[in-house]
Amino acid sequence: MNPIQPFSDFFEEEINSYTFPITPINLYDPLTYFLSLGGKRIRPLLTLMSAELFNSTKREAIHASMAVEFFHNFSLIHDDIMDKAPLRRGKETVHLKWNDDIAILSGDVLLIKAYQELAKQNAVHIPALLTLFNQTAVEVCEGQQMDMDFESVEQVSISEYIEMIRLKTSVLLGCALEFGAIIANADESDRKHIYSFGQNLGVAFQIQDDILDLYGDPEKFGKQIGGDILSNKKTILLLKAKEAAININSNSIQELLKMTDSENKIATAKQLFEEFGVVSFAKETMREFQRNALESLHRISVPQEQKQTLIALAELLLIREI
Amino acid sequence: MNPIQPFSDFFEEEINSYTFPITPINLYDPLTYFLSLGGKRIRPLLTLMSAELFNSTKREAIHASMAVEFFHNFSLIHDDIMDKAPLRRGKETVHLKWNDDIAILSGDVLLIKAYQELAKQNAVHIPALLTLFNQTAVEVCEGQQMDMDFESVEQVSISEYIEMIRLKTSVLLGCALEFGAIIANADESDRKHIYSFGQNLGVAFQIQDDILDLYGDPEKFGKQIGGDILSNKKTILLLKAKEAAININSNSIQELLKMTDSENKIATAKQLFEEFGVVSFAKETMREFQRNALESLHRISVPQEQKQTLIALAELLLIREI
Repeated sequence: MNPIQPFSDFFEEEINSYTFPITPINLYDPLTYFLSLGGKRIRPLLTLMSAELFNSTKREAIHASMAVEFFHNFSLIHDDIMDKAPLRRGKETVHLKWNDDIAILSGDVLLIKAYQELAKQNAVHIPALLTLFNQTAVEVCEGQQMDMDFESVEQVSISEYIEMIRLKTSVLLGCALEFGAIIANADESDRKHIYSFGQNLGVAFQIQDDILDLYGDPEKFGKQIGGDILSNKKTILLLKAKEAAININSNSIQELLKMTDSENKIATAKQLFEEFGVVSFAKETMREFQRNALESLHRISVPQEQKQTLIALAELLLIREI
Repeated sequence: MNPIQPFSDFFEEEINSYTFPITPINLYDPLTYFLSLGGKRIRPLLTLMSAELFNSTKREAIHASMAVEFFHNFSLIHDDIMDKAPLRRGKETVHLKWNDDIAILSGDVLLIKAYQELAKQNAVHIPALLTLFNQTAVEVCEGQQMDMDFESVEQVSISEYIEMIRLKTSVLLGCALEFGAIIANADESDRKHIYSFGQNLGVAFQIQDDILDLYGDPEKFGKQIGGDILSNKKTILLLKAKEAAININSNSIQELLKMTDSENKIATAKQLFEEFGVVSFAKETMREFQRNALESLHRISVPQEQKQTLIALAELLLIREI
């Protein structure tokens, strides 16, 4: 049996039985709507799996896992306003279905609801959970700001880019996992390792996402291929290609960015990225973070066979097409 | 000496020595800017005064008082976006000086920073502080949503209006005061009374604000007189006048709302509000909340003379012009 299924089943049942207050309708309806759109629920599963890894139970970690999922959805609702995104998981975004004001305020209340879930955990764990959650939440906001800033900046280095994705998406995976460790009273060193596993996994996943956007199987990837390059998005591929082009005084990438014919632009990008060794660079960088993730997991002081569920999840996330 | 001064001095020194991180600049500059605009800092002073009332110290309550001030400023930054307000404390609002996206995200991080301050309090108090803060924060959002909803609703009852101001502004005063009580290990009954003092004080203050908008001394009030009626804002005065007009089948208030000449509109409003007994109704309602506030304060099980600072603050807030 799929080792992830029991965790998914447990979490889905819990989140489906959670209800927001009825009124004010314009505050809570958007949240009921948005959370019903589903998604992979990777983050809360990490919390539940980590709790079990350290010999606690899913039940004991349920509120912390809800907090993580609520926080993630809060950040999506607000990010969608900033990105002017029309769709999320194939459905209308909150700011489009209602309006910006409602998306701001219902996002705010969802962030607070995340803290409310956290406060339902055993009181002895609350100070540690709260401190980690605060730190993580601040970092996610910093990552989102960096991402927005990058749009209007000419030069972004690879390390700045990796720092941005670390903050914007990876620290929350680390936090979700460390939550389980805190609840299970794991020691400081194991807490660090499980956090590091999540953070490295997150960076690897984001780099993979950049690669798949151009090289993935459209059916398996579930998105339009080449969307990033068509919008000149600063992915690790484009940033590395820019660096390479500058080094050899080529203006090929500048020309690429000006292209408007979609099919031609995607084909040219693929050709240039191969030429500049950008794809193998990105894959190698991704594998480095993947190795670091597994190394951190390996170091955790519980029997290796107990780690199979998390290894299965890492494989599910990372070995898709590459 | 003014009994409030030592609290103000203490808090100003603390908040002035607080610094946000430097980068990302677009995330933190707006916060440094907004918090430097000052304001009366009523809410954090309530926390500090309450801590002393129950025989703790200002120092022991400082982080909780910062949390309250940060939360209040977070709500102002986001409300200003929703209200499209150009000015706050005579200076440009964040969404105007920067943009909406930056105002959303820096508001978000300020809310998280409030929780970060809370997490700095003694661990034994954190679960209780967190639970109260979450409840209050949710209610403030609910109040803001009700306020926005009221704009497009024909009929708003007086009790709905009072419920809205209770949530939007008064519960935070109750929370600020109860924070001090929690930190000072006050008992459950005293916690309830000090919360009730703050909540009733808050409602009385908001009703007074409605009255002063039309009847205040422009110099002392510090705002343009009649702003509410010029924008047809549903204050307690207008809502009560509408009720009275409907009862006697008069369309005078409907006519008032259509008027466009400012001077004439303000004069007509004053005349109609007197005629309908609206002003005395509002003053009596305000005094009722004021009495309830002082009654709650009276019931607290500490010597009456220790309550003088809070009484002085209540007098400062409430006996301005009426």
